Amino acid sequence: MCGTMVQAFEQRGDAVTLSDLYAMNFNPVLSGADFKERRDPNYLIYALEQRHALEQGALADDIAREVERVEAADLLAFSFPLFWFSPPAILKGWIERVFLSGLFYGGRRVYDRAGLVGKRAFTAFSLGGRPHMFGDEGIHGELETGMLKHFLQGTLGYVGLTVYEPFAAFHVPYISADERADLLTRLRLTIADLDQRPTMAFPSLEDFDLHFRPKPMEV
Amino acid sequence: MCGTMVQAFEQRGDAVTLSDLYAMNFNPVLSGADFKERRDPNYLIYALEQRHALEQGALADDIAREVERVEAADLLAFSFPLFWFSPPAILKGWIERVFLSGLFYGGRRVYDRAGLVGKRAFTAFSLGGRPHMFGDEGIHGELETGMLKHFLQGTLGYVGLTVYEPFAAFHVPYISADERADLLTRLRLTIADLDQRPTMAFPSLEDFDLHFRPKPMEV
Repeated sequence: MCGTMVQAFEQRGDAVTLSDLYAMNFNPVLSGADFKERRDPNYLIYALEQRHALEQGALADDIAREVERVEAADLLAFSFPLFWFSPPAILKGWIERVFLSGLFYGGRRVYDRAGLVGKRAFTAFSLGGRPHMFGDEGIHGELETGMLKHFLQGTLGYVGLTVYEPFAAFHVPYISADERADLLTRLRLTIADLDQRPTMAFPSLEDFDLHFRPKPMEV
Repeated sequence: MCGTMVQAFEQRGDAVTLSDLYAMNFNPVLSGADFKERRDPNYLIYALEQRHALEQGALADDIAREVERVEAADLLAFSFPLFWFSPPAILKGWIERVFLSGLFYGGRRVYDRAGLVGKRAFTAFSLGGRPHMFGDEGIHGELETGMLKHFLQGTLGYVGLTVYEPFAAFHVPYISADERADLLTRLRLTIADLDQRPTMAFPSLEDFDLHFRPKPMEV
């Protein structure tokens, strides 16, 4: 699926930069070693050290390179197998280390006022489950707005990205090679037509006051 | 919070085994090296290799020890800072590598028919947010049944655990030392009274057919 995505974006004429986390042996565990210089060497408050290191140019090299890639991108595309209704640990750790407090979000700069407003995100994932297991009547409830809310809204939407409806490759371990080839074709067509794809609705800061309390309805 | 939890369970008379993932330098990235013997050395289908390694006693030592700890436990207690509305990558990787297909879940053995039915789970986490940011009107929506559904239902409930309502330590980076001490006291009292704490409602396989389709309502 990742290879198909790279090809499909290139066929649109997009320049693609690939961060293959497994191939890069990306370290997903945050620590004090993520900062070349510390604001407080004795007690690690990770978000505050992120802000300090950003000002001082003191981010670890592996983080700084990924931050640059995110900043240079118009669109972030994620590809992974869904494990336990969420991205694999290696991608979760990439988010924890690369989505910098102060730069991508912080204070009241979340959702439609966050740092990545103007950029877009597209996610394609595989899973073992089938479509009828999700939705209002499905055993697991909603997929995109339920099980995956923490990622699509709470992570991608939170940092201000415009999030296309994701591409789900259902039941992948149990289907035939022909059916898998068909999924790749559908993924390719989805990316070719991405500009037409619906985007997800997230909260707007316009509807909340300075303390994130809902504003009274206007009458 | 973790230290308070250990003490509070010991004060109940419980025997506590602690897996401190950071101190253990736990590897959160799954790979083919997790199995001493492979069913298919050329193509890694992780869940199938988990089942094979379980039968052959071929799980990597760091995984086998954690699986034994889960099997020996009556109650699993999780303690972590909430990052991006989900557990840190190091804990996510622990789940991916330790919650074995075939033993803890598999096929129709999910939720109230899964492998850990009869055991209980309690989670305590800290977060930057405040209570009014969650719930029906809150900017982020429901916390336990929304943002955290993937973990509380989709992971802990999925493997059959009876899940107590979690303990959320709100706004921790921004409150006073006295307020933090008060949170630890409330956590201690919560654990002292844990048997009385409400548990979360998850789907029952009784309501779904062999293909996980909802059974017709009885009239």
